[in-house]
Formats: sequence, structure tokens, C-alpha cells
Amino acid sequence: MKIAFLGLGTMGFPMAANLLKAGHSVSAWNRSPAPVDRLASLGAKPAATPAEAAQDAEVLISMLADDAATRFALLDGGALDALPRAAVHANMATVSVDLACEFARLHRARGLHYVAAPVLGRVNVAEAGQLNILAAGPDDALVILQPVFGAMGQKTWRVGERPEQANAAKLAANFMIAAAIGAMSEAVALAQGHGVDAAQFLDMITSTAFAAPVYKGYGKAIADRQFEPAGFRLELGLKDVRLALDAAAQVNVPMSLASVLRDAHIESLAHHEGHLDWAALSRTAARRAGQI
Amino acid sequence: MKIAFLGLGTMGFPMAANLLKAGHSVSAWNRSPAPVDRLASLGAKPAATPAEAAQDAEVLISMLADDAATRFALLDGGALDALPRAAVHANMATVSVDLACEFARLHRARGLHYVAAPVLGRVNVAEAGQLNILAAGPDDALVILQPVFGAMGQKTWRVGERPEQANAAKLAANFMIAAAIGAMSEAVALAQGHGVDAAQFLDMITSTAFAAPVYKGYGKAIADRQFEPAGFRLELGLKDVRLALDAAAQVNVPMSLASVLRDAHIESLAHHEGHLDWAALSRTAARRAGQI
Amino acid sequence: MKIAFLGLGTMGFPMAANLLKAGHSVSAWNRSPAPVDRLASLGAKPAATPAEAAQDAEVLISMLADDAATRFALLDGGALDALPRAAVHANMATVSVDLACEFARLHRARGLHYVAAPVLGRVNVAEAGQLNILAAGPDDALVILQPVFGAMGQKTWRVGERPEQANAAKLAANFMIAAAIGAMSEAVALAQGHGVDAAQFLDMITSTAFAAPVYKGYGKAIADRQFEPAGFRLELGLKDVRLALDAAAQVNVPMSLASVLRDAHIESLAHHEGHLDWAALSRTAARRAGQI
Amino acid sequence: MKIAFLGLGTMGFPMAANLLKAGHSVSAWNRSPAPVDRLASLGAKPAATPAEAAQDAEVLISMLADDAATRFALLDGGALDALPRAAVHANMATVSVDLACEFARLHRARGLHYVAAPVLGRVNVAEAGQLNILAAGPDDALVILQPVFGAMGQKTWRVGERPEQANAAKLAANFMIAAAIGAMSEAVALAQGHGVDAAQFLDMITSTAFAAPVYKGYGKAIADRQFEPAGFRLELGLKDVRLALDAAAQVNVPMSLASVLRDAHIESLAHHEGHLDWAALSRTAARRAGQI
Repeated sequence: MKIAFLGLGTMGFPMAANLLKAGHSVSAWNRSPAPVDRLASLGAKPAATPAEAAQDAEVLISMLADDAATRFALLDGGALDALPRAAVHANMATVSVDLACEFARLHRARGLHYVAAPVLGRVNVAEAGQLNILAAGPDDALVILQPVFGAMGQKTWRVGERPEQANAAKLAANFMIAAAIGAMSEAVALAQGHGVDAAQFLDMITSTAFAAPVYKGYGKAIADRQFEPAGFRLELGLKDVRLALDAAAQVNVPMSLASVLRDAHIESLAHHEGHLDWAALSRTAARRAGQI
Repeated sequence: MKIAFLGLGTMGFPMAANLLKAGHSVSAWNRSPAPVDRLASLGAKPAATPAEAAQDAEVLISMLADDAATRFALLDGGALDALPRAAVHANMATVSVDLACEFARLHRARGLHYVAAPVLGRVNVAEAGQLNILAAGPDDALVILQPVFGAMGQKTWRVGERPEQANAAKLAANFMIAAAIGAMSEAVALAQGHGVDAAQFLDMITSTAFAAPVYKGYGKAIADRQFEPAGFRLELGLKDVRLALDAAAQVNVPMSLASVLRDAHIESLAHHEGHLDWAALSRTAARRAGQI
Repeated sequence: MKIAFLGLGTMGFPMAANLLKAGHSVSAWNRSPAPVDRLASLGAKPAATPAEAAQDAEVLISMLADDAATRFALLDGGALDALPRAAVHANMATVSVDLACEFARLHRARGLHYVAAPVLGRVNVAEAGQLNILAAGPDDALVILQPVFGAMGQKTWRVGERPEQANAAKLAANFMIAAAIGAMSEAVALAQGHGVDAAQFLDMITSTAFAAPVYKGYGKAIADRQFEPAGFRLELGLKDVRLALDAAAQVNVPMSLASVLRDAHIESLAHHEGHLDWAALSRTAARRAGQI
Repeated sequence: MKIAFLGLGTMGFPMAANLLKAGHSVSAWNRSPAPVDRLASLGAKPAATPAEAAQDAEVLISMLADDAATRFALLDGGALDALPRAAVHANMATVSVDLACEFARLHRARGLHYVAAPVLGRVNVAEAGQLNILAAGPDDALVILQPVFGAMGQKTWRVGERPEQANAAKLAANFMIAAAIGAMSEAVALAQGHGVDAAQFLDMITSTAFAAPVYKGYGKAIADRQFEPAGFRLELGLKDVRLALDAAAQVNVPMSLASVLRDAHIESLAHHEGHLDWAALSRTAARRAGQI
């Protein structure tokens, strides 16, 4: 299939590489050119602009940093205008519910199909082609995308016909990660307050009732106080918690845990910890308790 | 070893049965007599009072409902006075940090040893003798207890020399369960607010990043809206969250997520849901969003 | 002075009328024409568009519903383009810090002066010309505006040279009103839970330590359960709490009380109470406690 | 009337002095003897023990620091046993709802009357005999107490027949003070974050919509950062917020603002600020925002 790929970051690059491996033709653009060259060495066709990548594509995949970068590439960068009629755009980044609604309208108006397809899984999972893909959009478009998704992920979860539903589900999942980190942070502060070793407590909890990837990964970082280099920056975590709260407010859903977590993230930023790994959220609980 | 066992509830009974299976001599008491008779049929010596069970014991295990029941059996019920000098008392129930401190003093004053040893794992885990035991107390006493713990659990985690440290760790763990249920509840409210199917969302999340026993168990109950019969009653969950907050306040540790969860539990009680399973906490998030 | 006035709502109308009374020449525009006609009968010059009102004005006052309405009148409506060079625009509405920053830039680029001057006080205070005006902007512009403000308010508080500072101060004040209503709501729920009469409790508290206009006014509405007609709609209160949280997040200030209040407001909307008076926020505390 | 007075602290002393001024016979006890001597110089009869003060009394007033001190003087100190049958005990301190219920039972069992009568107003108000008294208890007892209350307060608010109702009302009022301080703290953090002067902001707000004693008093302390000497210690504020939460939990009333405030107070203690004036709660909002 002829695929345009916009955004070759830490996640986008291995996803695009897997498309090449599966035999698809990939025309790729990235804001900075180096990853484009690297992907070209794997067989991709380099594009100097989003529009250049998009022309002739049957399917366009975008995996950009946030709403602004996505809007920039698709609108200012001309990708949307360049796409052939009836092409399918699958936006696999974590963006706002608002953007999904706006993009669904813009695509429809041009005779294009818009699918939201954010993913669960980090870089190593993307490299292995084992992502879980949360997809929402028109049925026809999802059928077209299935072989594309199959090259990048182990499973596609179809969560609805309106694209923003996939974003809502993804934001709900990311909120749960924030809550897991936040809960470990407070639990550790309590345990440490009584002289219990944080590393032992986290080892215990993550090898029993909480033996899940999220807890093991962030738990180890908290135990080791290892917040650099950041696997996923705290400030991006804040972005996602905010988007979750916004998505919830749109449908009048109050989220009291999410609000508390938002406050804790902002406190992290006030203490210059936004560039650290998301696990550094644990420092806020410790700081409030006078432990650091 | 000659063991006295106080409290043959859903957890205590299989734990005591495992002690018998391992060849220990068990003298057992329970507030209501039926479980005592059942355990006697497995080889235990029935005791009419806590004191009767305790006399001649080398080790006393208590697994009672809460602080009040523990205080009643040990103090009013005479078990403490009946224990032979140098006996070891392992309190395996989830009780307050305050009680642990008070009991440590009372035992020391009588030449007895007090160990706090609350457990992770539910009834089926107790039956299989596969509990995780969080133990804190004097080293000598823990050495004596090891064969006893070995008959009931797969692993003993020694978290400190002061008994209350084990209670603090256990309460921190139970708080994390409350946080997990609370986070699923809000995530589901958000997803449902956008028309995403709750069961599918929970299936997705608990088969990927949150593939841990706590999430799978409570997630299924939330998805199925199956809150009766209660595996663990919401009102007991509230008790544990309160004890966690109390334990934290003692050492000046603020826990903002725990506070929010406490409020949600109280709201559940105000709506007559305290007798339901802990998973029914999800109804509060839904009710606040006008979804039920 | 030649003044253009945009927005003749419940607040704007008496403010503009006071300008006329003070002898100023007022050219007025409003989205719906009726208030323009009424003000014309008091001596104002009616304008069919924002641009028509703005041409020839030395000072432009805007008092519009929110960011969107303000942006619409000034930008789409052409007022900004129509203003003579060196004119001063005083935006007296409660808008976002973001809008203030954006407008300050836009005005500067056109050689215009932008002042943010939101007000404290409700309709009767506006009618009496006794508003408290929170003003921020360039000193020169504030000097020019002083006779204009003097016709509408009892006092002008100069809070800074950057316009958004006045908006931040105004949002901080409105957050405090939300907090006062929220605190009364929870206090009443506690008192009522013990059978204490809500009206008596509120009478007591607002005639002693809390004998302030905000408490007396909203306290009476809570005591009487009189939420219609709305003096200030709850959904507008939510807007202001959100703007306060946004303004705080911009400078990395976490506001935990504001977050809790935001959740409570959203819960009110989920229960179809957004059109009621702000005092109806009290229903959320009562509902959570199962009292209604 | 023959009155026993237990507890001559900063509040109790002027209250007892006003009873003497009104012509009552007062027998007084205090833990430390100096205030007893001072009151004796005004005409009181010094008592060496609570029991000695209580014998022959028609009315006993207690104004002790907290539950423990009250329990100590009345029970261990023998005052309750010493009171003549049919005597009336008015406990004017801020104590828990639990203590009120327990004391009501204990008094009834001895043929005594128990009235809870906590007060609103600080030292200068007590000295002026202008306290607001929140009274709850049996009607007969309240009739007997009226001339006594009249000598100490400007008004008695009868809030119910069960003593704990007055405590619930008083705790609700003190929670509102905590909320007022907390709201000013966050508002100031927001304003300061945008470079608005805290003192000017507080001056503005407390001379307009929030022109009430609580706001003026604590607002000035926040503006001046004057937290010593403490008018009312932050750690006592925490005690009252906790008692309010406990009183609310008893009747299944969740209080989300109170929970957030409790967390903030604990954070203050963790930073060694418990001995400072209640206004120092503002430091927590500032610290979270990285402003101090």
C-alpha cells in the first residue's frame, strides 16, 4: 500500500520501519531531516514537506508530538490539501478530543477519511511491532487500515465510529498511568515515613498484587530515584492528564483523582522537574512530607 | 509447635488449617463457635475462650476483624494474660499503627514478643498457603515464627524491627488497591462519557499495561457491575484507607489521593453501598457524572 | 471624552449610562439591538457594528460575555481596525489571561493602548457607580482612563503594568467567591448531618466571623434554597474557576482548592444545574451526603 | 450562682473574670496555678483540684484545651464525681462530637445535665463579654445557664437538644475559617505568580466582597508574613479540621474541601510550621508553587 508517514520520533520511526518491513511503500517526512535519511536507508522515500509525503498516498499515518505539531503538519504543511480524494488518515498520536472532532469535520469536507488510532506501548513494543492500537472511525476506513495496523501492532481495539472515542480511551488509559505513579508515590511516602525501605516495599508490591508493566517500570525508577534520562517526560504526562480532564469536562464527567494529579504535576514543574521522567512525580509526595 | 489461633474467619480458617496440615498443634478460638468445630474436625483443639487457647502456646496467631476485635480477644478475653512468658504473638490482621505500638508495649511489659505480620492475598491464596507475609518485629521472634509463616505463605517480607512498620506497609498496599479501583472508576466514567464501552475498555487496559491481579479482579467486577456477594466490603476498604491516612498523619505525610478516595468511600456509604464489594466504589464516579 | 461602549448587558448598560450621566459622549453597540435603543434614549449614539462604534473614539470600553464574544466584536466586528491611532481600549470584562496577553500584543502592533480593567461588584453596585475597578496596563493609558473609571466606580486599584495582571487578580477574587460558596456548602452539609438547622447556622456565621457581602448573599440563597432566578449562573462560575486554574497553571501555581471546586461545578452541570444561581453549588455537597 | 470554672487559659480567664464581674460566686481550677491566683485576686475561690472546684457548684463551666484535657479534669480529676446531683455542666471548649456523646451519657447516668456551648470570638471578644455562644442540650439546663452565658456573651444560639449538635456547628464554623485561610493562600499564590502584590490584593479583597473579620485578620497576617506570635496555632487548626472531618464521617458527609485543607495542614507540620499562626497555612500554597 502507498503510505505517507509524518513524524519519525522515538515511536514513529520504528512504526514506519515496520511498515517498510511488511512491504509497504512509505513516503516519510519529519520536522528534522536526520530520521528521514535513516528511514530512507531502509527503503523509504524521503519527503521535504508534509504535502510532498501526502501526495499519491492511499493512507497517511501521523505520529506527531501534540495538537500543535499535528495541526501544523496537516494544515500549514499542506498534507491535508495534498491527499488524494478518498485517502485515509490515521492519526496515531495522543491528541485532544477537540482536535479529533475538528479533524473529522475537516476530512469529511474534503472527501477524506479520518481515523484516530493512538497506541499503548513504549518504544521497545513499537520496535517489536507489538503495539496495542485503539482505533475509532468509519468502518470502511478501519477495514482499509487493518493490514497497516497489523504491521505495527499485535491487536487493534475498535472502540467506536467517532474518532474522538479512541482519543478519550487513550487519555483514560494515560490518566490511569498517572494515577499508578501517584499512588506509588504516596504509598512510598507513607512507608518511608515509618522507616520502611522504599525499594523493598515497591519490590513486594510489584511482584504480587501489582505485578503489571506500568507498576514494575515506574516502580523501579522510583525505587532507584533514577529520573534521567527520561523515558517519558513528566511535562508530557501533565499534558495528557490535562487532555483527560478536558475530554472529561466536555461530557460533564468530574475526575477528582485526575485533578489532584494535575496539581501534583504542576507542583513538579514549579520545582523544575518537568524534564525528568514521569516517575519523578514521586518527588512531590516526598517533598510535601518533608522527606527531601 | 504449640500454636494458639484466634479468629477463624474467611482468611483465618484456611491459614489455621494449613498450620494443622504442616503438623503443628493448634488450639483455636473464634467468636462464633461453628468454625471452631469445623477446625476441630481437622485436628485442632477447640478453646472456649481466647485465654484457654493461649495457655501453653509457644506462638499465638491472631487474625481478627479490626482493632476492636483484636483488643477484645487479647485484653478482655484474657489471651495476653494467659500466654506463657517468652511466647510470641504474631498479629496477622490489618490493624492500625496505633494498636501495633500499644501492643508492642503491652507485650514487652509482660516479657512477651509482639510481631505484626499482615498478609497480601485473598481467600484462595490463603487456602493454597501462598500468602505474602509482611512481618516486622524483633529478629529473635521472627526466627521462631519462620516455620509457622512458611506453612501459610510463599514468602515472608521482613520490613523492620518495629511491629508498626509492617502495618504501615500493609496499609500503604491497601491504599494502592483503593487507588487502583478509584482510577479505574474515573477512567471508565470518562470513556463511557464518550460512548466507549466500559467492558471493552477495562478488558483492553487489564490485558496490557495493567495486567495485574488487582486490576483484573476489580476491573471485571466493575465491567459486569457485579457487586454482590462482596469479596471485600467497601466499608472495610474505607476502614483501611482511614487507617492509612492516620498512619501517614502520625509521621506528617500528607496523602492527597488517599484523602480524595476517603471522600468517595464516605459518599458510597451515604448512598447505602457500604455492604457491596469494594468495586462498587465505581458507582460514585458514575453518579457524580450523572451516568447512573 | 468620546467613548465607544461595546456590550450593554446587565453590567454594561448601567456602566454606560453612568458615563452619559458624567457628560461623556458615548457611541454604543450591543449584539442585540434593544439595549442600544434604550441607551440611545439616554443620549447615546447607537452604532450598528462594533467598527461603527469605535471610529473616532478616544476610549473604547468593552464589557462582553467572554473571550469569544470579545474576540468577535474586536476582531471580526472590526472595532480594533476602526479605532483611531493612540486610542485606549479598556476591557472591563472577566476574560482569560491568555486573551489579555494576545490583545496587548495586537493593540501595541497597531499603536493602540490596551488596559485590562475587570470590576468587583454586581448590578446594583454598577448602577450606583460604586464599582471597584482592578486596572492594569501602561501608566499613560491609565491616566487617560481615570475620569472614565471615576464615572463608573468608587475606586480604581492599579495592580500592574501588564494588562493580564488585572485579569489574574480578578480571577483570584472570583475563585475566592467559589471557595466561599463551596465552604458554606460543606459546612451546611456537616451541620445538617447532625440535625442543625441550615438557615440558623448560616445566619449565625454570616452575622459574626463571616459578616461579608459574599457570605451574606450566597448564604441566604443557600438557606432559602432559592436558586432561580440566577443572579450569576453556576456555569459562569465554572468558567471563572477554569480561567483561574489556567492562569495559575501558566505560572506553575497549583491550586488544590480550585481543583476540587472545579470538580464540584462539573458535577453540578452533570446534574443539569448549570443555569441555576452559583449558590446551587451547595446541592453537590448535599447530594454527595445523600441529603437530597 | 455558685459556679465552678475549669480551665483559665487565654479564653477561659476573661470568661471567668466576667462571671465574677456579674456577681457570681466562682470557684476556679487550672492545671498551672498562676492564673488561679490571678483570678483569686479578682474575687474567685481557688481550688487545688477539679473535684474541689466542683463540689457545691450549681453550674460547672469547662474551657479546656482539647478532649484529653477535658477528660482528664472531669474524670481523673474527679470533677464529675464531685458535682452535686442536678448540677449543670456547660463545656464551652471546642471538642469532638464523640466526646459530647460520651459525656452526655456519663452525665445522665449521674443525674447531671450536660450542655455543649462552644464559642465564636477570640480573646478580645471574650474580654468584652461579647462572645457568640453556640449552645445545645436539654432545654431546662439551657434556661438555668442563660444568666451565666449572658455574662460572657452577646448572644446565645440554641442549635439543638443534643449537646453534640453545638460541637458539630462549631466545627463547621472552624472549618470555614480554615477554608477562608486556604482560599486566600491560593488566591495570593495565583496573584503573586503574575507579579501582583499580595498585600494590595488582600487589601482590595478584604475591603470589598470579603470585608469580614476572619478575612481581615488572617489576610493581614498573610500580607505581612507575620506568623509569630501565634494568635491561634496552625496545629490547633489542624485539630479542628480533623474533628470536623470526623464529625462529618460519623453522619456520612464527605467534605472534599476539608480533606484538601487537612492535607495542607499536615504538610505545614512536616515543614515544622505547626507552632506558627494559622495564617502560616499560606506558606504551603507558596511552597508548592516554588515561591518560597
